[in-house]
Amino acid sequence: MHPIGYYQQIVSDYFASANFENEPTNLYSPIRYILSLGGKKIRPVLTLMAAEVFNADCREALPAAVAVEIFHNFSLVHDDIMDDAPLRRGNQTVHEKWDINTAILSGDAMLILAYQYFEQYEPATFMALAKLFSKTALEVCEGQQWDVDFESRNDVTQPEYLKMIEYKTAVLIGAAMKMGGIVAKASDANCDLIYNFGLNLGVAFQLQDDYLDAFGNPETFGKQVGGDIIENKKTFLYLKAIEQGSADDKDNLLNFFATQPEDSTYKIEAVKQLFGITGADAATQNAIEQYTLAAFSTLDKMDIEPEKKLMLRKFGENLMQRKV
Amino acid sequence: MHPIGYYQQIVSDYFASANFENEPTNLYSPIRYILSLGGKKIRPVLTLMAAEVFNADCREALPAAVAVEIFHNFSLVHDDIMDDAPLRRGNQTVHEKWDINTAILSGDAMLILAYQYFEQYEPATFMALAKLFSKTALEVCEGQQWDVDFESRNDVTQPEYLKMIEYKTAVLIGAAMKMGGIVAKASDANCDLIYNFGLNLGVAFQLQDDYLDAFGNPETFGKQVGGDIIENKKTFLYLKAIEQGSADDKDNLLNFFATQPEDSTYKIEAVKQLFGITGADAATQNAIEQYTLAAFSTLDKMDIEPEKKLMLRKFGENLMQRKV
Repeated sequence: MHPIGYYQQIVSDYFASANFENEPTNLYSPIRYILSLGGKKIRPVLTLMAAEVFNADCREALPAAVAVEIFHNFSLVHDDIMDDAPLRRGNQTVHEKWDINTAILSGDAMLILAYQYFEQYEPATFMALAKLFSKTALEVCEGQQWDVDFESRNDVTQPEYLKMIEYKTAVLIGAAMKMGGIVAKASDANCDLIYNFGLNLGVAFQLQDDYLDAFGNPETFGKQVGGDIIENKKTFLYLKAIEQGSADDKDNLLNFFATQPEDSTYKIEAVKQLFGITGADAATQNAIEQYTLAAFSTLDKMDIEPEKKLMLRKFGENLMQRKV
Repeated sequence: MHPIGYYQQIVSDYFASANFENEPTNLYSPIRYILSLGGKKIRPVLTLMAAEVFNADCREALPAAVAVEIFHNFSLVHDDIMDDAPLRRGNQTVHEKWDINTAILSGDAMLILAYQYFEQYEPATFMALAKLFSKTALEVCEGQQWDVDFESRNDVTQPEYLKMIEYKTAVLIGAAMKMGGIVAKASDANCDLIYNFGLNLGVAFQLQDDYLDAFGNPETFGKQVGGDIIENKKTFLYLKAIEQGSADDKDNLLNFFATQPEDSTYKIEAVKQLFGITGADAATQNAIEQYTLAAFSTLDKMDIEPEKKLMLRKFGENLMQRKV
């Protein structure tokens, strides 16, 4: 096994050398653009790592890893249209730099390009990868639709919220890792276990993102702290606070989430206090821990060398940036 | 072999029984809606017919045929957003009935669903179908981008225009037929020949569509006669007229195509006359004939029973509604 940086380098090198230079320019330039904006490349790194965990040369998994990263970027391009987002990775979104029509069509092309990367494998592997990919991609669409639906609903439950983040975010983490297993021809049992490892870690990661959005260190958290509160987003913290709070706490929270003041400093502080008072803060940290532990417990069941389990565990701890 | 109606019935029965009933409703309702609007279902019929031409039970090709039809509808949903079209098959377009975001996401889901239909075949067939599908789908995206690009260009050449309609329309006709061949395990040579048959017929069909848009019988042509002239669309007729016309004819045509009068009766008549005077009319009919003959000549090379060649030829003549 290698340090994470090793896999990141392989992925970065690939994207630096792949030029996606093709005609018509107006279709392929936006693809080159979004793929050149960087990002952490967590998903393809996981595909390479998983292949090595199951004793394959990680480079064998590079086409699958690239497919996953291109799909992830496809979903960002289309989601950014839907969210009317001006910025992505600190740069203009595709629909801002070009227009909505270009972002739709270039996104479509990326989804197809992702499938084409699997063509580098022989038929049985191709089919296993493409099947998992289609199932996952459809779930990601469903997760995005739930997320859109939840914006206009006031009765979202915690299980519904958890299912939404599972589909929108976690299934792709699970699938990225399972693809490494498929390429390495790991047993079905091992493939399912690494999928569940990624799935649980993905949910933990998204819950932590919700948590850090409120309680993160402004110096180290990549986004604006309090962003979800400003936008009245019904995250896990909010749903827990509504569930666990007193009638007064609940009223206060509902009132705050019905406003969008120009200066949100007071609102953010007050809502964070409510998250503390209601125990939503602690409950969310607990949920993050539970999902992380669930991920680690699937490692125990995996039929691989102990040092590989340790490596995956370290990666998980690193990703969560906390010891549990 | 059976009459066309037989294959149409099989396809209609399938779409009538498939409910695409799934959650979240806001993702799947638009899919059910667009697939319920009917349409001629030419592409899936061609897949079934091609399978039978190569001695398979046409029902074996039904999953591939359904994939092609779902993909075609995906492209309509996304194209209608880009063209800001209010109506499709006489009904509201998806983005009009719902909204643009819904049309984007439901379209994405349809593209993925199309791939999933190939999963009903064993790995080698799955891979052959999915590979052809990805190549074709990407070409359709490229064709759509050329079409968008051409709107704002005044220097489009005839070869460029022909390539655009080949990619936007004809490759899917070719691929639909080749898929029938793949399912029937026809030889590579036969698969390539039936692809070329469909490709040439597809170009002829689209050129005829351009022709009928100007010279069609208002009673039998499905769309508004003169629609392309009203919208100043640079079709094959227009490009031929510019190429073959005198300096005066060219000036007149350029002037007409720089206007959008409220009452277009005179403009349509005048442009049609210019299409006649310049010989664009005859040149387009000649091109249609050439592409149709090219399609029929690939039939001669095909290693199948004479009555099957005759059947495909009859289908082609029927589609073109003219004897050549």
